[in-house]
Amino acid sequence: MLSPQSQELIFTNNVADAIDTWVKKAKPSKLYVIADSNTATLCLPVIAEKSASVANAHKIVVPAGEKHKNLETLAGIWTELCNSGASRSSAVINLGGGVVTDMGGFAAATFKRGIRFVNVPTTLLAAVDAAVGGKTGIDFNGFKNEIGAFCCADAVIISTLFFHTLPHSERLSGFAEMLKHSIIAGGDAYSRLIRNKNVDFAGDDFLELLKESVLVKKNIVDQDPTEKGLRKALNLGHTAGHAFESWALEQGKPVPHGYAVAWGLVVDLILSHLRHGFSSETLRGAASFIEENYGRISFDCSDYEALIDIMRHDKKNAGDGTISFTLLHSPGSLDVTATASPEEITAALDIFRDLFHI
Amino acid sequence: MLSPQSQELIFTNNVADAIDTWVKKAKPSKLYVIADSNTATLCLPVIAEKSASVANAHKIVVPAGEKHKNLETLAGIWTELCNSGASRSSAVINLGGGVVTDMGGFAAATFKRGIRFVNVPTTLLAAVDAAVGGKTGIDFNGFKNEIGAFCCADAVIISTLFFHTLPHSERLSGFAEMLKHSIIAGGDAYSRLIRNKNVDFAGDDFLELLKESVLVKKNIVDQDPTEKGLRKALNLGHTAGHAFESWALEQGKPVPHGYAVAWGLVVDLILSHLRHGFSSETLRGAASFIEENYGRISFDCSDYEALIDIMRHDKKNAGDGTISFTLLHSPGSLDVTATASPEEITAALDIFRDLFHI
Repeated sequence: MLSPQSQELIFTNNVADAIDTWVKKAKPSKLYVIADSNTATLCLPVIAEKSASVANAHKIVVPAGEKHKNLETLAGIWTELCNSGASRSSAVINLGGGVVTDMGGFAAATFKRGIRFVNVPTTLLAAVDAAVGGKTGIDFNGFKNEIGAFCCADAVIISTLFFHTLPHSERLSGFAEMLKHSIIAGGDAYSRLIRNKNVDFAGDDFLELLKESVLVKKNIVDQDPTEKGLRKALNLGHTAGHAFESWALEQGKPVPHGYAVAWGLVVDLILSHLRHGFSSETLRGAASFIEENYGRISFDCSDYEALIDIMRHDKKNAGDGTISFTLLHSPGSLDVTATASPEEITAALDIFRDLFHI
Repeated sequence: MLSPQSQELIFTNNVADAIDTWVKKAKPSKLYVIADSNTATLCLPVIAEKSASVANAHKIVVPAGEKHKNLETLAGIWTELCNSGASRSSAVINLGGGVVTDMGGFAAATFKRGIRFVNVPTTLLAAVDAAVGGKTGIDFNGFKNEIGAFCCADAVIISTLFFHTLPHSERLSGFAEMLKHSIIAGGDAYSRLIRNKNVDFAGDDFLELLKESVLVKKNIVDQDPTEKGLRKALNLGHTAGHAFESWALEQGKPVPHGYAVAWGLVVDLILSHLRHGFSSETLRGAASFIEENYGRISFDCSDYEALIDIMRHDKKNAGDGTISFTLLHSPGSLDVTATASPEEITAALDIFRDLFHI
């Protein structure tokens, strides 16, 4: 199995060249491209036009959408690899958002006990999060990413090439993870990022910002590939964020993942303020930026129990009944071993509703 | 992901104590035992009587037999882990032969991206081979171990405790892998092993021989966990062996895995003789020992094409159309990068039939 350290990150808008260069070096006996029904139409032809290896690759197209990130689709990928004669020396290129890189990565990680794969994220969210760091997997039995493996792509080719095809809400969703990385990084990363919020997402300036953000993640993953400690930093915003996301889905009013993370970030900053004296000025600034860009999620105190119950079942918990959070003393200074009681979470949700004028 | 080096091997006939000691140290939030319908009846009660942790563990029982080492049974294990509230801090004990350790290991390796597991092999074949070294997986789409991962058990507890429950053919099957290890090890390992062939398989003397054999494998796996090179040594006997096994199955006359490996070992020694001048005296001695103990597999030259065709589809091949073999210059001196042409294999099968008087 590949260790995360061996993962090569390539930042370029010349994706076709980067793929051909990798293929020339890696010499797979057979090359596969896994795409979903969207990226097969919108992205694959653009690359295939300039890349001989992609043009000649065996294509596996899966249905688009999180609901297809399941065992059935995975078994379909395995079957197609198997029936088309993929060997241990074959390689896979995952071309798509997080669903494709997560599921295609897991398919490659487990086919004949692991073949090489390259991620080519086509969404901002996948570029800044899913495609990097070796978390692969599928949803199972109603739980997100319940089945999977830590297995890094051999290479991740990160571009802004397809961001113009993304709806505004998708770009904002990815931007939320960049906000998270900037707060984890500390220094002036956060203020520089929000200052540059309006640069052209498809341009080279944004590729530079993206690179800085992805390297925050890579640096952490290299030190703790399997999330024994430090990597939990990347869960900032995700305990409450995941609860908001699941709860909204249950209510029949789904919200984009990144929006939920943005709101979850505010909950974590509130808990950080209560527990570790995190600056209330920074907290208020972030809450206001997030309200302005992501809007609000509406809930009242009768929903707290349902939200806390979802947090109780989060797989990031230790299994001893406590609810785990990633908190901060200040931007850049993390507490990855925090837990919060239902009472503390209740207090934080009260403050959250105040800040968001709900 | 656990690296193979972290795998602890415990050789003892006091299995209950060894499990309790591991559990006390590892402190899983919840403990599971995966057994098959045979080991749940024959082995589990024996250990549960003396081990509080096993007695109190959540049991998952799967149907016995290689034909159940499939995606359906695996999904059943995942579902039961999920529905019973297994967390990342839970742990699994795999109690059984290779089917249970392979499939239970893969279930644990992929549940929530990996929880800890301990293998307690109950057959000689599993003790000397499957349970050690991190190859986990299931059969898929008609191919053996097509889906899986390299992921080492946290600990393997190796005993001779249940070998008295094994049919003679099962013991011989495991002994074939010990023969293989002794030839790989070189020195006097092979001659000492065949001299001790008749010791009590359930006794402490045999546990010592077993330990020596398992350490040959562990030593190799530690140096090359994911089979990039040296680990291919352990494929000795397996290219032709696997072909004999699959071919016999297709003929409706299945043979035990270890028998096929024993015969495959002879094919590899013949190719080693032809290619590298491996001693014909040692080759003849091994062939005669194997004929005496494992009998013959009957085939004639009209079957060569079918056998070679199976070898062509072996997943150990490089994917460039050649057929890979592990050969020897002499016992202890390996060539793990050999390939053989259909003509050479034909010549070897002719000599094989001579040696076995077929």
